[in-house]
Amino acid sequence: MPASSVPDIVVGRLPLYLRALTQMAASGKEITSSQELGERLGISSAQIRKDLSQFGEFGKQGTGYNIAYLTDQLRRILKVDRIWDVALVGIGDLGRAIAHYAGFVDRGYRVVAVFDSDPEKIGTPVGQLTVEDTRRIVDVVRARRIAVAMLAVPRDAAQEVTDRLVEAGIHAILCYAPTSVQVPKGVHVQYIDPVLHMQRMTYYLP
Amino acid sequence: MPASSVPDIVVGRLPLYLRALTQMAASGKEITSSQELGERLGISSAQIRKDLSQFGEFGKQGTGYNIAYLTDQLRRILKVDRIWDVALVGIGDLGRAIAHYAGFVDRGYRVVAVFDSDPEKIGTPVGQLTVEDTRRIVDVVRARRIAVAMLAVPRDAAQEVTDRLVEAGIHAILCYAPTSVQVPKGVHVQYIDPVLHMQRMTYYLP
Repeated sequence: MPASSVPDIVVGRLPLYLRALTQMAASGKEITSSQELGERLGISSAQIRKDLSQFGEFGKQGTGYNIAYLTDQLRRILKVDRIWDVALVGIGDLGRAIAHYAGFVDRGYRVVAVFDSDPEKIGTPVGQLTVEDTRRIVDVVRARRIAVAMLAVPRDAAQEVTDRLVEAGIHAILCYAPTSVQVPKGVHVQYIDPVLHMQRMTYYLP
Repeated sequence: MPASSVPDIVVGRLPLYLRALTQMAASGKEITSSQELGERLGISSAQIRKDLSQFGEFGKQGTGYNIAYLTDQLRRILKVDRIWDVALVGIGDLGRAIAHYAGFVDRGYRVVAVFDSDPEKIGTPVGQLTVEDTRRIVDVVRARRIAVAMLAVPRDAAQEVTDRLVEAGIHAILCYAPTSVQVPKGVHVQYIDPVLHMQRMTYYLP
């Protein structure tokens, strides 16, 4: 089935399935079921079966899913059976935490270039990398054929940096700046703003 | 309309509207429309009107929304017309970035207690706060009547800390640990895992 025909909301659940399966495998499990996965994730087993059926036949009624096989298939579908080079822009507290986070590589991503506009930061080390001038984004991203970026800049800088990333050929941006950015069709943006999540919860509190 | 009758997906969009309206107000705008908001957010104007209509009449056909008024109403609905005290557990790179983040207070949240289990961190300062032992979570959270927590601990510690937070009376948890945690009914959990967002995008990349 061509990628474009699967609803994005379904695509959005696949990483959750992959994460849970990876954890099950790490704890020594070999077989699971849509029921077990569902309980773990708070998603109905019917939903999980329906989601997975969009991509093929991954289990048989009554025998469950082979975790290693389904993991491999999900990694292939999500294209994390490879490692994506990532450009990180903005080396404040958050950017530094992202750069140091060890949990990206074994899930498909590796930060290979870090940028900041602050002259005091440019040229300094962040882990194994050296902070480069944001004015060099287009050159560096093109030369290294980087397709994915993370944006940890202040709100007011987000659109300008986004424009530069798009010009450089970036097709996926994870935006930590608390704002919405405009991108041309074909460029994907996902947002992380903790306050949005917090407000969604305090709505329900007495 | 009672809170429980509004779909959570609608509740989830209100913080986005509030954020955009706040930015419009900061740039000096006084009036907006569902069209303008929609273009800014990539959400249809019909959806925005429908979402807001669940909570009352906030604008008149043809005259648009008064930004200050709608902002006040959304802050009241989302219960961020007050400031929530927040407990932060886990003072690694990410926890430290969260503790230092200046963008929480004017949107309704203030980190008032930080916890870690590492003896080398306990007793050390993080901004204006001092790291406390995670074993003191129940005492401190109860004494200070904290209702909201952020979890920035490693994956393997997430469930244990969650259990302690729930025991302490926490009703909303923002979980940065890359795993799913189990909570009793009535406790809300939202997750932030950047890899889930990244995988959702690389799915579409060539």
